[in-house]
Amino acid sequence: MAIRFYDLAGAEEARRFSPYCWRTHLSLKHKGLDFATIPWRFTDKDAIAFSGQGLVPVLVDGDRTVHDSWSIAEYLEERYPQAPSLFGSPQGRHFARFAKHWTETALLAPLMRILAKDIVERLHPKDREYFRTSREKRFGTTLEAFSSERDQAREQFRQALLPMRRLMGEQPFLSGSAPALADYIVFGAFQWARGTSSYPLLAEGDPVAAWRERMLDLYGGYARAFPAG
Amino acid sequence: MAIRFYDLAGAEEARRFSPYCWRTHLSLKHKGLDFATIPWRFTDKDAIAFSGQGLVPVLVDGDRTVHDSWSIAEYLEERYPQAPSLFGSPQGRHFARFAKHWTETALLAPLMRILAKDIVERLHPKDREYFRTSREKRFGTTLEAFSSERDQAREQFRQALLPMRRLMGEQPFLSGSAPALADYIVFGAFQWARGTSSYPLLAEGDPVAAWRERMLDLYGGYARAFPAG
Repeated sequence: MAIRFYDLAGAEEARRFSPYCWRTHLSLKHKGLDFATIPWRFTDKDAIAFSGQGLVPVLVDGDRTVHDSWSIAEYLEERYPQAPSLFGSPQGRHFARFAKHWTETALLAPLMRILAKDIVERLHPKDREYFRTSREKRFGTTLEAFSSERDQAREQFRQALLPMRRLMGEQPFLSGSAPALADYIVFGAFQWARGTSSYPLLAEGDPVAAWRERMLDLYGGYARAFPAG
Repeated sequence: MAIRFYDLAGAEEARRFSPYCWRTHLSLKHKGLDFATIPWRFTDKDAIAFSGQGLVPVLVDGDRTVHDSWSIAEYLEERYPQAPSLFGSPQGRHFARFAKHWTETALLAPLMRILAKDIVERLHPKDREYFRTSREKRFGTTLEAFSSERDQAREQFRQALLPMRRLMGEQPFLSGSAPALADYIVFGAFQWARGTSSYPLLAEGDPVAAWRERMLDLYGGYARAFPAG
């Protein structure tokens, strides 16, 4: 039986925008593994209770269940060592880990400010109240107020991308001539934006935008085929 | 004849604080190569004119002259392939390159705000006017005004360190269980601060401070032996 994973879906089943789940989508494509996704919503906690926690991605491979996108990548490396490596070397693992922390501290915070009020509109109706209540509690304000200065948040986001922008002026992918886990992790942040909002994120001519296009082209345009905006 | 390199020195010859030269100090130690430094000041442009440009580090190895700390690291890798690698793998090279861009865009800017008014006092008297004039032109204000909100700049610096702080909670060095070029590049930023200022940069208990101590301990306490504050 093919690998399956539980993947956050929006109002339409085809709309997929979790930045963490996107790491798993592309980790599986990188490995060349057959898989199917199971659309999941925030309020479907019971559906993944067997994993011992309440967040996606949750991967099921035969009798193995793995949650957390990083743990899934490590599991795939260990279980499928003959398939192309997600790390390439121990140093690639350290780089991917740094890219993860960089994405989660420098990129996702300004992105949340930009996207919050659009996200809620893309969710399945049954998820909207859950998302609004939990996030408004976390942010200490309404989603609309939180997203009201998105132009400023976008400046912060673009500023945070500086190290990547420089590297993308030098080589096609963070991981060199071909993408690997570091690229998939950062790309997850961009897929979060692409799947929830039509607000333009990058300036024209930004080398990071050219990288994003290359990422959208991978594996026969796999990521591009999902609903955007 | 041993390798030599021109290294920025302060008022005392032993005071060395160029963030770029520190990359070369530790690249050479990492490679286990014998070398001597030649103290150099900003106004000694003639002394390195043979390199075709005006910045240090400039490395001289037999009849080869190499400038720019990244080019020096690549030269050392190629010329001394039997010595421990500064990259470890192609992925390690990409990581070091990202670390370089991250250091230069996210760390050095707030550090300059913190350090500017202290740096000028640590310089050789013959360099002070050059430094003040060139930097005040670049900043559009006096060094003292530029450094007047250093507590805020320190908050920005600490915030920028978040991805590294998380990684240092997980492993001893950016490059894993042992340091490599990515570590030396980031450490150069801290040596810039250590060699010019006694302003406390990191909070007590910060995992990045523990990493800095490990870096100061390397190679028999090599970096620690240089004048601080």
